[in-house]
Amino acid sequence: MALEKYLEVLQNELDTYQYGEKPKELYEPIEYLMSLGGKRLRPALTLMAYHLFEDDWQKALKPAMAVEVFHNFTLMHDDIMDEAPLRRGQPTVHEKWNRDVAILSGDVMLVAAYELLSESPGNDFKTILKRFNRTAAEVCEGQQMDMNFADRETVTEEEYIEMIKLKTSVLLGFALELGARSAGQPEEVVNQLYEIGVNLGIGFQLKDDILDVYGDPIKFGKQIGGDIIENKKTWLMLKALEKSEADSALHHWIRAEDFEPQKKVQAVIEIYNALGIKELAEGAMTKCFNKGFEGIEKLEVPEERKAILRGFAEWLFGRDR
Amino acid sequence: MALEKYLEVLQNELDTYQYGEKPKELYEPIEYLMSLGGKRLRPALTLMAYHLFEDDWQKALKPAMAVEVFHNFTLMHDDIMDEAPLRRGQPTVHEKWNRDVAILSGDVMLVAAYELLSESPGNDFKTILKRFNRTAAEVCEGQQMDMNFADRETVTEEEYIEMIKLKTSVLLGFALELGARSAGQPEEVVNQLYEIGVNLGIGFQLKDDILDVYGDPIKFGKQIGGDIIENKKTWLMLKALEKSEADSALHHWIRAEDFEPQKKVQAVIEIYNALGIKELAEGAMTKCFNKGFEGIEKLEVPEERKAILRGFAEWLFGRDR
Repeated sequence: MALEKYLEVLQNELDTYQYGEKPKELYEPIEYLMSLGGKRLRPALTLMAYHLFEDDWQKALKPAMAVEVFHNFTLMHDDIMDEAPLRRGQPTVHEKWNRDVAILSGDVMLVAAYELLSESPGNDFKTILKRFNRTAAEVCEGQQMDMNFADRETVTEEEYIEMIKLKTSVLLGFALELGARSAGQPEEVVNQLYEIGVNLGIGFQLKDDILDVYGDPIKFGKQIGGDIIENKKTWLMLKALEKSEADSALHHWIRAEDFEPQKKVQAVIEIYNALGIKELAEGAMTKCFNKGFEGIEKLEVPEERKAILRGFAEWLFGRDR
Repeated sequence: MALEKYLEVLQNELDTYQYGEKPKELYEPIEYLMSLGGKRLRPALTLMAYHLFEDDWQKALKPAMAVEVFHNFTLMHDDIMDEAPLRRGQPTVHEKWNRDVAILSGDVMLVAAYELLSESPGNDFKTILKRFNRTAAEVCEGQQMDMNFADRETVTEEEYIEMIKLKTSVLLGFALELGARSAGQPEEVVNQLYEIGVNLGIGFQLKDDILDVYGDPIKFGKQIGGDIIENKKTWLMLKALEKSEADSALHHWIRAEDFEPQKKVQAVIEIYNALGIKELAEGAMTKCFNKGFEGIEKLEVPEERKAILRGFAEWLFGRDR
């Protein structure tokens, strides 16, 4: 069994799923956003976790899709809030249609996620639902924290980790948990998988912060330094500010209103390099991934079942896109 | 047992329910909107329906609250789309905070509705969830249809009834259905209650359309003729257009861009009066309510249990606010 097989079957299910028909302004944006692709890593995690314990992994397709649809719902609404023109290189829903369509179509998408979730196998659906509710609320809390940070002068490393944990990691944790719960695993095992997902998730986001600055623009598929241009309070930026004197060159670039984007990116990267920020970020990221890897090793499942989850985590750790 | 008792206990539950704490931008708007009041008729319907069959009606409080929280979630997002400055005479959430807060806080509110729903009693929660999903999607479909109608030249009476059925009535139907399902009633009884709610719901919305034109501004709590000023395609307007010649005085007032609001309201009401629109609307409304009343009479429950639901429907029918 290889990751590609999960993704192929999953993609087919996503392509043929009927979200609804009329009015078309409500359902076409869902199909559009879902068709733009993405790594599908959250549903892959659910399938892998279920398959650690049960052979019939196709039974976990619907809950896996629930996680992916939920994730894309958050993207549709976040893109309105961020006024983002592009998503995966294509116009965002609020740009292609309009704001109201993006709000309402997103709402229906959240409802669709619950409908898919209701198809979860296993005997304790109410616990699955309550855990999904908690996770969904936390993702919104993370998004609100992120927006609040943008208006603040300073953010501590601890606050930043808490924000990305809520905004990104808990959903990766839940994706694994959902697979284990759907397979009827006991709380102890469910919690092990959740913790693995949360640790991989924090590592995943730190990797994203690093790739924004040090990635290969062709492979990463985004312009390098976007976070720097926008003064986004990433782990790298916060650490660099922590290591800078008051009123440093970095502060100057952050305050600058009139600048050439490429010049600012270049200058900030030089400051990062002088302060050794890349190595510090990679250290913090590696620590999170290692916690995840340790969690995977501790799982009491046959070695051949573990291999695919470990391989997936290794890919997340080493990815350059 | 009187309606006031339900509403008193319900209000107390709503006042003390914890939606969440941090970040406060996410949860304060929920508490704010819920504190603005409203008739609470949807949760009252759930409690009444449950109480038709079971004594311990307090057990249906959480699902009843789910319906009310869901309804208020739709108001929070609809108010953004309608760019409404006021809700129940107070600033809307997007005015008091901002658009992004209203989007995200609304999202969490929908999640909170699912969390409350998960506390429904009864042995078939998955069916309750699936029916709630369907209803929630329909309410969004109705809202999208309503927005589409605003951009259209003509709307038929049939299309209008379909729109208000989705936007308003299915949730009243579901509120009653939810009470019956929570009380473990068979599908036949569940469907009877759903149909009663849908018919009362259409009647309720037609009453709203009538009160906007013919209500007492003091009792109704809104300025009279708001729908007329905005050219809203209500049942009355559509019927009047149907009965008017091409390029009539009504068409003139609809096209007018520069007008004194009170003059337009007065003129359109005179057109309505000349065409007998009020009587036609009251006829259509009465027909819907009568279907609802007939449904209530057919319910096989002890007379004394029926009385409160009948009384409530009579109040909806006769209300002047």
